[in-house]
Amino acid sequence: MSPPITPSVQYTTTVRLEYPHETGRLATITAAIAEHGGAIGSVDLVHIRDGRSLRDFSIECASTDHAQEVVQALQALDGVTVRSVSDDTFLMHLGGKLEVRSKVKLKTRADLSMAYTPGVARVCSAIAEDTQLSFNLTIRKNCIAIVSDGTAVLGLGDIGPEAAMPVMEGKAVLFKQFGGVDAFPLCVGSKRVEDIIQFCKMIAPTFGGINLEDISAPRCFQIEDALKQELDIPVFHDDQHGTAVVVLAATINALKIVNKRPENIKVVISGAGAAGVACTKILLSYGVTRAVVCDSKGAIHLGRSFGDNATKVWLAEHTNPDNEQGQLSDVITSADVFVGVSQPNVLSVDDVRAMNDQPIVFAMSNPDPEIAPEKVQGIAAVIGTGRSDYPNQINNVLAFPGIFRGALSSRARQISEPMKLAAAEAIASVVGTDELSPDYVIPSIFDQRVTRLVAGAVARVAEETGVARRTPKSTIAVWT
Amino acid sequence: MSPPITPSVQYTTTVRLEYPHETGRLATITAAIAEHGGAIGSVDLVHIRDGRSLRDFSIECASTDHAQEVVQALQALDGVTVRSVSDDTFLMHLGGKLEVRSKVKLKTRADLSMAYTPGVARVCSAIAEDTQLSFNLTIRKNCIAIVSDGTAVLGLGDIGPEAAMPVMEGKAVLFKQFGGVDAFPLCVGSKRVEDIIQFCKMIAPTFGGINLEDISAPRCFQIEDALKQELDIPVFHDDQHGTAVVVLAATINALKIVNKRPENIKVVISGAGAAGVACTKILLSYGVTRAVVCDSKGAIHLGRSFGDNATKVWLAEHTNPDNEQGQLSDVITSADVFVGVSQPNVLSVDDVRAMNDQPIVFAMSNPDPEIAPEKVQGIAAVIGTGRSDYPNQINNVLAFPGIFRGALSSRARQISEPMKLAAAEAIASVVGTDELSPDYVIPSIFDQRVTRLVAGAVARVAEETGVARRTPKSTIAVWT
Repeated sequence: MSPPITPSVQYTTTVRLEYPHETGRLATITAAIAEHGGAIGSVDLVHIRDGRSLRDFSIECASTDHAQEVVQALQALDGVTVRSVSDDTFLMHLGGKLEVRSKVKLKTRADLSMAYTPGVARVCSAIAEDTQLSFNLTIRKNCIAIVSDGTAVLGLGDIGPEAAMPVMEGKAVLFKQFGGVDAFPLCVGSKRVEDIIQFCKMIAPTFGGINLEDISAPRCFQIEDALKQELDIPVFHDDQHGTAVVVLAATINALKIVNKRPENIKVVISGAGAAGVACTKILLSYGVTRAVVCDSKGAIHLGRSFGDNATKVWLAEHTNPDNEQGQLSDVITSADVFVGVSQPNVLSVDDVRAMNDQPIVFAMSNPDPEIAPEKVQGIAAVIGTGRSDYPNQINNVLAFPGIFRGALSSRARQISEPMKLAAAEAIASVVGTDELSPDYVIPSIFDQRVTRLVAGAVARVAEETGVARRTPKSTIAVWT
Repeated sequence: MSPPITPSVQYTTTVRLEYPHETGRLATITAAIAEHGGAIGSVDLVHIRDGRSLRDFSIECASTDHAQEVVQALQALDGVTVRSVSDDTFLMHLGGKLEVRSKVKLKTRADLSMAYTPGVARVCSAIAEDTQLSFNLTIRKNCIAIVSDGTAVLGLGDIGPEAAMPVMEGKAVLFKQFGGVDAFPLCVGSKRVEDIIQFCKMIAPTFGGINLEDISAPRCFQIEDALKQELDIPVFHDDQHGTAVVVLAATINALKIVNKRPENIKVVISGAGAAGVACTKILLSYGVTRAVVCDSKGAIHLGRSFGDNATKVWLAEHTNPDNEQGQLSDVITSADVFVGVSQPNVLSVDDVRAMNDQPIVFAMSNPDPEIAPEKVQGIAAVIGTGRSDYPNQINNVLAFPGIFRGALSSRARQISEPMKLAAAEAIASVVGTDELSPDYVIPSIFDQRVTRLVAGAVARVAEETGVARRTPKSTIAVWT
């Protein structure tokens, strides 16, 4: 897929123009914008003074180059002066997207002596006697850390901790908006597995959970495994499990449409990174028996050499029961479901034609999928992507806010496999059987039922399976 | 000083009582509260139903035991039922005192595509090309970490990271309220110096500064020294420098009252911990030439053995020019200023009488000072404490919000000695020469001029001394 040539909201540019306040001037300007391919979002009047108008034009462009082209065209108009140009996406990021706010008001010395010294000492002493009280009396109750080393950020790769921050801040915004979870991003300046493990262990007393984010494979597996064993708060690598939960939800509903059962289908997973491995594991947990995972060298099977990559050894031992070999285009034959978490354009139309009847295609490489949906319209029974401009967007935000909401509310020690399965079932359940259609197997991220149902399911399973911790008997706040 | 026997707001207890709605009932209840030593803060009506009143009584008590005694007295009243009892200080801490809020609204997919994918990728790429942009485009611009290992919390000592959190959260509240600084508390689960240094280095890409807090000496010196050398963001140990700045501010004004100059006075500092060392250093920087520091073994002087305590060796080499020896009561003779950051009641009235004419006494041990102010009223020319219930409260909150505000605004690489001196001068300047009096050498923490003046002075000195970083030429937001 080539870069977009149509205007996109992410390239919205706001241009402040001053020009003579005369009939027809505005029309000339808007015509010039349209002529150069810009789409006007809004026009705001700043003021009219001394016979001159000052207006802000918000213009969606296709790229920054395109935006500059539009601005140059406006500058060239007779009598028009460009007063300023701003890039709305960058403007939105100025100073970052998060703030730390106090929930208590300090207006008087009395407030101060309760929220701070001397009163706070009593609260500290209570926690020192019973650290479990920290889950009630500190931000731990509702706050998680988002930890990243910036090694696998979006499609950008290893861009470092500073550059990863805008994504992690965005993630925190989503946690709060969709799950009511306070999340604080911590981008760390080391890529060593041991350093990141040690770091997470050190911050554990501050937080109620840790969301690992955009850490490259296979390091992410080692980090998560170690932390799960050593910490008693939930540790969740969203790139793995968030994706896996939503893929499973989509699969559950897609299988209803084609009327197939997990134990009878063959699934081919393209990509053996964090997401690919987790999708494979959750599909196996759900009852899929025939899964074949492909990495860049082709199908993972017994007999291939994987060096010291323990994850691929595990995959070879637990998937591909027929020991299929060859490239993706070889093993895709007679598959029922394709799960793509790899590279753009690795799946061809012929590949999809070689799949079983009513093939299901989830092509989630971002922004360019493994196959463009329009190419297999009418061939695939169900198509999903990671994009918001096609139906069936497989988006982690359907999962992570509700999963952590449920884990924090039940004070779960971990986010277990049964909790993830329950989350997937909950997401799938939002689409009613009467609503289910090839274009609607997964709910919208703006559907407010999603987080509520996911959180409820996760908390319930945590309680049923003994992962939740009872609220400790409290000697505080209420005596009688 | 014995524990307080008068009601204190920190022991405010709210009791919900139900009783017959009859004339005289309320008076009986308030009389019972007063009789048992409680002070009524407020009485709120919940409702009157079926001839019965339900009211909340907020009662200041002297201790939790006292509160229970008051509640039992109320329970014993005829016809009165205690419906609930809550401890207001604990209630205020439920769920912690901070929240992480989004500064951007995500109402539509368009918002999402600017604050998150795909638009955020452009911001990430810009920072990846120039990490200095992270100071503009992420929370780094206004956000610092408060890092503690919980080893020296208030007067409580080593209570651990979980129990230290309420103090660090309170500190973050103060940073926001007084300095507009977003501060996030990170209490870490290791006491090893190397671990804490490594931890701070790892979080540096996320933050615009680091405030170290309640880390015991001498570890705090090693940690701060290492981080100052290795990081290019300000690192500030508030227990040292916050205290030192405010002590210097108080000293500056107190010396005006007694009409003495720093180069002519003798200062005795009681306490060689974090605060004592920093107070000594800033007083030397200010021009004091004769300073004698006492630890629990007496005066620090050349010839004493300090093991491997490098800080005390430094003190022996740089203070006590006359090599005075003995206990505090020996070296206090003919001192002009006493600075107490040590233990309750280590200074006697005779000690103060042995000081030079017009002695200045800053007794800042908390909550019980080195000497009770009332004992030297009329003997000392100026008295200051750490307490809010005496005049001249020496409180760090006068310093740290403005210092970090100034450092962040000027994007300072560090908080240097000249910046701290400027902060002290700024605090002192808030008290006008016409206002200056023995009871008013230091402004109130609620005086809104303090932070503004401190921040301005700190930023100005940062710029004058080359510690500030120019805003890098920005290719973002504005092209023309």
